[in-house]
Amino acid sequence: MSEAALARFSINQMTVKQLSLPELATACVDLGIPGVGLWREPVQAYGLEATAKLMRDAGLTVTTLCRGGFLTAIDAHARVAAIDDNRAAIDEAATLGTDTLVLVSGGLPPGSKDLHGARSRIAEALAELAPYAASRGIRLAIEPLHPMFASDRCVVSTLAQSLDLAEDFPPSQVGVCVDTYHVWWDDQAPAQIARAGQGGRLHAFQLADWITPLPEGVLNGRGQLGSGSVDLRQWRGYVEEAGYTGPIEVELFNEELWARDGRELLSETARSYATEAC
Amino acid sequence: MSEAALARFSINQMTVKQLSLPELATACVDLGIPGVGLWREPVQAYGLEATAKLMRDAGLTVTTLCRGGFLTAIDAHARVAAIDDNRAAIDEAATLGTDTLVLVSGGLPPGSKDLHGARSRIAEALAELAPYAASRGIRLAIEPLHPMFASDRCVVSTLAQSLDLAEDFPPSQVGVCVDTYHVWWDDQAPAQIARAGQGGRLHAFQLADWITPLPEGVLNGRGQLGSGSVDLRQWRGYVEEAGYTGPIEVELFNEELWARDGRELLSETARSYATEAC
Repeated sequence: MSEAALARFSINQMTVKQLSLPELATACVDLGIPGVGLWREPVQAYGLEATAKLMRDAGLTVTTLCRGGFLTAIDAHARVAAIDDNRAAIDEAATLGTDTLVLVSGGLPPGSKDLHGARSRIAEALAELAPYAASRGIRLAIEPLHPMFASDRCVVSTLAQSLDLAEDFPPSQVGVCVDTYHVWWDDQAPAQIARAGQGGRLHAFQLADWITPLPEGVLNGRGQLGSGSVDLRQWRGYVEEAGYTGPIEVELFNEELWARDGRELLSETARSYATEAC
Repeated sequence: MSEAALARFSINQMTVKQLSLPELATACVDLGIPGVGLWREPVQAYGLEATAKLMRDAGLTVTTLCRGGFLTAIDAHARVAAIDDNRAAIDEAATLGTDTLVLVSGGLPPGSKDLHGARSRIAEALAELAPYAASRGIRLAIEPLHPMFASDRCVVSTLAQSLDLAEDFPPSQVGVCVDTYHVWWDDQAPAQIARAGQGGRLHAFQLADWITPLPEGVLNGRGQLGSGSVDLRQWRGYVEEAGYTGPIEVELFNEELWARDGRELLSETARSYATEAC
């Protein structure tokens, strides 16, 4: 692959979670991959400062940190804990040198059936978090998750809902993360991407393909680029027409892919990106 | 339970598929259940005329026939076959004495990534089917399926899309089926229910609860009423505010429920309906 083909490519760490952070950094350098999206748990396990140094020394751009959020609790103690945890995530993002923290908003609290109330509590939490994030130079990117996660993971199911939440704040503080896996089915999403672009709120763009049958629990069924139903080039077109010029992150969760050699999978993913999304 | 509590209740046959049609009819009479939703395959297996007689003799109302649809094929032969099959489904519905055929529109054809094109082909097929259905006294009810089925089962994922398709035809010919399992996550659905009611297009209303974790393949994970995240009484309120006065059908697909005694499950389902949705 030419360097130009991968100029905007970023590999989300979860795609190749079988690689340690040093293995990931080395493989990215070897393959000419310029960016990585990181996750808090493996970063904490390796060490925050150590990870930041590893990425700097390898010349890698940390395109996003995944993830903050889970802001839907009703219980007062749980709400305080969530705010504190998100402040910590913002600090970690700043240390890692990324400008974007991805937020997965959280599902319904146990026993609750009130999606609207849960979305309201996210708005309240953002009012506390957005100014703090701005003070650390971090943008929050609200990621709508596929409606199949609405009860247990993310009550924000569409880009329209993400933007409704984000637009209470300056675009430098709160925007959205567009992930093809979560929005590909939504005929309103292209117009919402345009809305996000006009508002300067397209803060992250992630690719994954949609494949079936979905596995039990549906979390780890994301398909390699080109293996499923998503017209990835078309979605890249939507964000670019909306003015997006940032990194394009590939984020796959898939047990079969995780069972393979990590370097080989990373190489395949970079090739698939160049073939399917460029 | 009082007879009044079950006055609008209908049991979809798939909920208790362990019961034969005669067992189902007897159990409904014993429990005071006035309506049943039927499926084509078990009806064909028992015999169409025999089923119609069985339901008539038991005094049961056939509230819907499930299902027509699967109208997204590109191949010309497959398209002709789908139209013919839907004409047969319309004839069967008429013989069974129901006024409503539920349509599940179909997924993406193999290799296609074109959701918009698939939706266009549904519109073309409806133009052939709607007048025929009207001539037999049957209304077509387009059912949006949850977006997790968009690729392999139904490219119509929202009530808005269903209504966009339906409104090309008179409301006496084409309307929608609102199933709480498929639309509960959608903050636009209440407004779309109002739109459907204003247009006289609320042709069927089905209840199921949303539970997680979803099983592999996600088809048979519907929850018993009250076991999950859906505020069923609120959704019943939405359709009634929109003028719906018709039957309320409970349709569960769930391996654990199917493993139980069918009569006991039917009795539990009727009780859950009275408790959770009335």
